[in-house]
Amino acid sequence: MPFISKKGYAMPESPIRKLVPFAEKAIKSGKEVIHLNIGQPDIETPEVALNAIKNLDRHVIEYSHSAGFESYRRGLANYYQNHGMMVNHNQIIVTNGGSEAITFAMMSCFNAEDEIIVPEPFYANYNSFALQAGVHLKPLTCYLEESYALPAVEKFEELITSRTRGIMICNPGNPTGYLYTKEELELLRQIVLKHDLFLVADEVYREFCYDGKVHHSVLSLEGLESNAIVVDSVSKRYSMCGARVGALVSKNPEVISTAMKFAQARLSPPTIGQIAGEAALDTPPSYFQNVKDEYVTRRDIMVNGLNAIDGVGCPMPGGAFYAMAKLPVDDAEKFCQWMLEDFSYKNATVMMAPAQGFYATKGLGKDEVRIAYVLEQNKLKLALEVLEHALKEYPGRIEIADRAESVESI
Amino acid sequence: MPFISKKGYAMPESPIRKLVPFAEKAIKSGKEVIHLNIGQPDIETPEVALNAIKNLDRHVIEYSHSAGFESYRRGLANYYQNHGMMVNHNQIIVTNGGSEAITFAMMSCFNAEDEIIVPEPFYANYNSFALQAGVHLKPLTCYLEESYALPAVEKFEELITSRTRGIMICNPGNPTGYLYTKEELELLRQIVLKHDLFLVADEVYREFCYDGKVHHSVLSLEGLESNAIVVDSVSKRYSMCGARVGALVSKNPEVISTAMKFAQARLSPPTIGQIAGEAALDTPPSYFQNVKDEYVTRRDIMVNGLNAIDGVGCPMPGGAFYAMAKLPVDDAEKFCQWMLEDFSYKNATVMMAPAQGFYATKGLGKDEVRIAYVLEQNKLKLALEVLEHALKEYPGRIEIADRAESVESI
Repeated sequence: MPFISKKGYAMPESPIRKLVPFAEKAIKSGKEVIHLNIGQPDIETPEVALNAIKNLDRHVIEYSHSAGFESYRRGLANYYQNHGMMVNHNQIIVTNGGSEAITFAMMSCFNAEDEIIVPEPFYANYNSFALQAGVHLKPLTCYLEESYALPAVEKFEELITSRTRGIMICNPGNPTGYLYTKEELELLRQIVLKHDLFLVADEVYREFCYDGKVHHSVLSLEGLESNAIVVDSVSKRYSMCGARVGALVSKNPEVISTAMKFAQARLSPPTIGQIAGEAALDTPPSYFQNVKDEYVTRRDIMVNGLNAIDGVGCPMPGGAFYAMAKLPVDDAEKFCQWMLEDFSYKNATVMMAPAQGFYATKGLGKDEVRIAYVLEQNKLKLALEVLEHALKEYPGRIEIADRAESVESI
Repeated sequence: MPFISKKGYAMPESPIRKLVPFAEKAIKSGKEVIHLNIGQPDIETPEVALNAIKNLDRHVIEYSHSAGFESYRRGLANYYQNHGMMVNHNQIIVTNGGSEAITFAMMSCFNAEDEIIVPEPFYANYNSFALQAGVHLKPLTCYLEESYALPAVEKFEELITSRTRGIMICNPGNPTGYLYTKEELELLRQIVLKHDLFLVADEVYREFCYDGKVHHSVLSLEGLESNAIVVDSVSKRYSMCGARVGALVSKNPEVISTAMKFAQARLSPPTIGQIAGEAALDTPPSYFQNVKDEYVTRRDIMVNGLNAIDGVGCPMPGGAFYAMAKLPVDDAEKFCQWMLEDFSYKNATVMMAPAQGFYATKGLGKDEVRIAYVLEQNKLKLALEVLEHALKEYPGRIEIADRAESVESI
């Protein structure tokens, strides 16, 4: 029997993968499982997008251009310009979701053994894409206690070696919900220019900024024309994750022409998803206002509710729809499994993503979980009630006074 | 300015890429360009699939399972069983087109520097996928004069080294249209078992077999449970290339669990494409009979027409919708460019794919082109007329008597 590849063995599994069988078992046993573990919003896709699909006026579902339909790219360019990113349709490649845009960026910009600095905790699948490209992610630790703000420039400088070729950020952040300030982006701008690095920014949560805060794209930073690459997606913006339509955007013509060769090899992004994406560009502003209002309400319920639970700490996120929470437990993964296997309250339990999978530094995130507040308000309230009771009953509970010791012993 | 990656520089461009600007210029000048260069059929997508899209009954376009909707995979398993491939839905991963299935297969099974033997000429994008995985393709030359039949076992043995880890075939073949016989597959079975190799078969043209010939899948070969991997796609079968829905199929659980990790990283294949693909499983047999009849008529027009032109040689393909033709020209790429730039007949010209891009062995295919007979009959007849006149006028024409010499001088 032939062996599978080393890369295949090394590919990390999803941080929640191990928990899925326990969740399935819990559901089969009749328990309600409240899913706070995944970023699949329950928000409706805009009607303009759904109608475009239903009114499909084609007899052959043909390939599109490998970079995506030109009309869609022109529409996207207009959308980006309205968001302060002065790009044209030739600086955009439509991709199979944001995932493929990350793959294209990594394959086009970095060589095997190159290093990319990524503030941690970060979206766990970056590990997978890096492994596919043979690239090393160098984590720059951010702290829950500092609300995941970007560390000082010295911390970057400490990590930069002769192999460092890029910095990758997610803004607003998954899993932290952290929104970078203008000053932080200016800091990144300077580091990137000083060391001649690529700056890859995953900006798929651009629309989800709260409390009057404003999103700044790396494509709006001056002098980064050769360095900045944006990864985008319609998945979260229009609640159409299944469309599998994203985009790679850069003003660097060499990045675009190189990524185009990868795009040509896989022929075309999905035609129907693009039709929906193009129609979604006409989504009325009221849609986004309603969605944002809803997320702010959900966030406040969730984050305030978490902080009201004895021993739980959760910084208020400025964007996206995730929050990271520190729990008074010995091991968040064990706790999450225990909640699915051995606990219920009002016949319900909660599934969360243990945070260790979002850290590259071993041992970090052991008492943290990522929570996605993508469910309706009543479900979130029930989830909080369940969690509060679970934390009281959990045999591995650690009192706050003990925590410092426990962290040191890692 | 940061440099792009070595892989990015090395990525091959599409074999027709260089010709596209000339085609665009020809169209702008008012010439009709008959596209025999791409495999985008003009056949209509089955109505059941189009209706499934139009009747979309969802308010949120959600992710599917990373392996694809279970109902779709169960339907696919049933389809494969009807085609002699005894697989279940857990042995199938739905992918972003056949392209992603090839990527998953290569990433899961082969290490950097491993070698895969591929009969040439082969689908040019295999080069791109191999380069992405760091794998080397070792061409095993097949000959137009032998209708691209598989070479004898000795030829395989000559190519096998300690690094050889697999054989990859396309059956029926793109670009040759060659359909492997049962005996040839038996030969492959023996080689694969003897040397403990993976056998990856791109079978996306399964339905397109002519003259009463039957397709044999590598998944129907005995004793290859651990070795055989099938790459599949709905693109050609249902003329819905833009759905971007394919599949990786294997009875080897380690291959599937490894490929699943790559699938999880990119989250999900396209939801709407899968809905169309699942509905398309109910396409009535009459659809395929009509399509096959149409392709046989087109093939006969094209291949007989080509062979009737002085100096042209074209073996009769047994499947798919491509044919390779040898032309009496100095350089097929130059000839194709000349046709777009400097020639027209009845205000029309023809675009073909120069065959060199389908060979890995340097110098081969220099006087060959790939022709896709995916256009309606009258267009094909006009294309033949145009080609006949072009070959008479082309300044680089080489008479058959001179050809042997010209081939030797490569």
